[in-house]
Amino acid sequence: MTTTSDVTTLEERVARLEAQEEMRRLAHEYCHGLDKRDADRFEAIWSDDAVWVLGDELQPQGREAIGAMARDGVWAGLSETHHWTTNFVVDWTSDRPRGTCDVTATVRQNDGTWLRAAATYLDQYVKQDGHWLIARREAHTHFTEPLA
Amino acid sequence: MTTTSDVTTLEERVARLEAQEEMRRLAHEYCHGLDKRDADRFEAIWSDDAVWVLGDELQPQGREAIGAMARDGVWAGLSETHHWTTNFVVDWTSDRPRGTCDVTATVRQNDGTWLRAAATYLDQYVKQDGHWLIARREAHTHFTEPLA
Amino acid sequence: MTTTSDVTTLEERVARLEAQEEMRRLAHEYCHGLDKRDADRFEAIWSDDAVWVLGDELQPQGREAIGAMARDGVWAGLSETHHWTTNFVVDWTSDRPRGTCDVTATVRQNDGTWLRAAATYLDQYVKQDGHWLIARREAHTHFTEPLA
Repeated sequence: MTTTSDVTTLEERVARLEAQEEMRRLAHEYCHGLDKRDADRFEAIWSDDAVWVLGDELQPQGREAIGAMARDGVWAGLSETHHWTTNFVVDWTSDRPRGTCDVTATVRQNDGTWLRAAATYLDQYVKQDGHWLIARREAHTHFTEPLA
Repeated sequence: MTTTSDVTTLEERVARLEAQEEMRRLAHEYCHGLDKRDADRFEAIWSDDAVWVLGDELQPQGREAIGAMARDGVWAGLSETHHWTTNFVVDWTSDRPRGTCDVTATVRQNDGTWLRAAATYLDQYVKQDGHWLIARREAHTHFTEPLA
Repeated sequence: MTTTSDVTTLEERVARLEAQEEMRRLAHEYCHGLDKRDADRFEAIWSDDAVWVLGDELQPQGREAIGAMARDGVWAGLSETHHWTTNFVVDWTSDRPRGTCDVTATVRQNDGTWLRAAATYLDQYVKQDGHWLIARREAHTHFTEPLA
């Protein structure tokens, strides 16, 4: 991977901008796939051996396990989810590019009551077959509160 | 229109990035115009014969009808609106580039009570006189709920 | 500064896109620094003599005064803050590039109660040592309401 100081030619600068657009899109597609309950769309953002870190003992690995978690964990457990991604930034100083974004979410439980939640997602990206994908996403939840 | 595979030269790649910035800006200007009640700013984002699809029977067409809907529908009916755009993505595989974004909104009715709402906007863009504009925006509302 | 009409070569167009990414990042780093209570991260987004306009009589100037306001005003007065930036746009037609974004925030007071708030930030950017920084940010608050 190139770090900032390696990006010098115009072609490298354009490739960097394209990569950032692609990573931002991954963060957004996560919400579209998860909230619109589109399994193909949701699974398409992860690398083959990606890890989705939802808690100490809740860390599905691989596209299939991640898809099962969306289906059996999120979609079965909540009647509606709405995730809104903000504050997306990418850092290029590590071995892998890393992204950080905040999310505010409003979800409806199966009993009809609403919760509001906030979290920060810490991402790592990897390039496979010419496309950037999420290799690891850690969700750090700030709060989950009932919404009157 | 060019699809992804047609974008090969550095100039085409830069033009694609510029187009995406311009489309994202349209989605953001929609909120600034509508919420700050700036008719010129709101009308400037639409193409001449744009369609704003708000419901089966609520589909103003053309910049003038769209501006009238903002004025007579939104501004007359609500004392404050706040629209926050997130999860913006553009797809280039159709005849026209299409955008999708989610919006979370908080609005105040004329009686002083608040509502919270969520929707997804499906956009189509067209280039007129060198600038990308919204040719069609469909609002698909997920919920409208009172906010205590 | 260059205005839109001055941007003609491919290199200038790429530099414009990079500048916009950098400015958007400043708006996002503001939230990460402020909400995660990381003083270095928060102070790094401001120019040496930046002004943070929070009210008629609340306008800290310079990185040190701005950092003190975050520490003594925000972090001491609220147990949690969550700022979500949306609708970011940049205008290049002035002497300095200007940004506008909307923010929705949820904050927890030291007594445990929650507030929800909305504001628009009007920014001015300046380039120092090769990097764009915030020279002035005005916060225009739309509402601050208790959240049940």
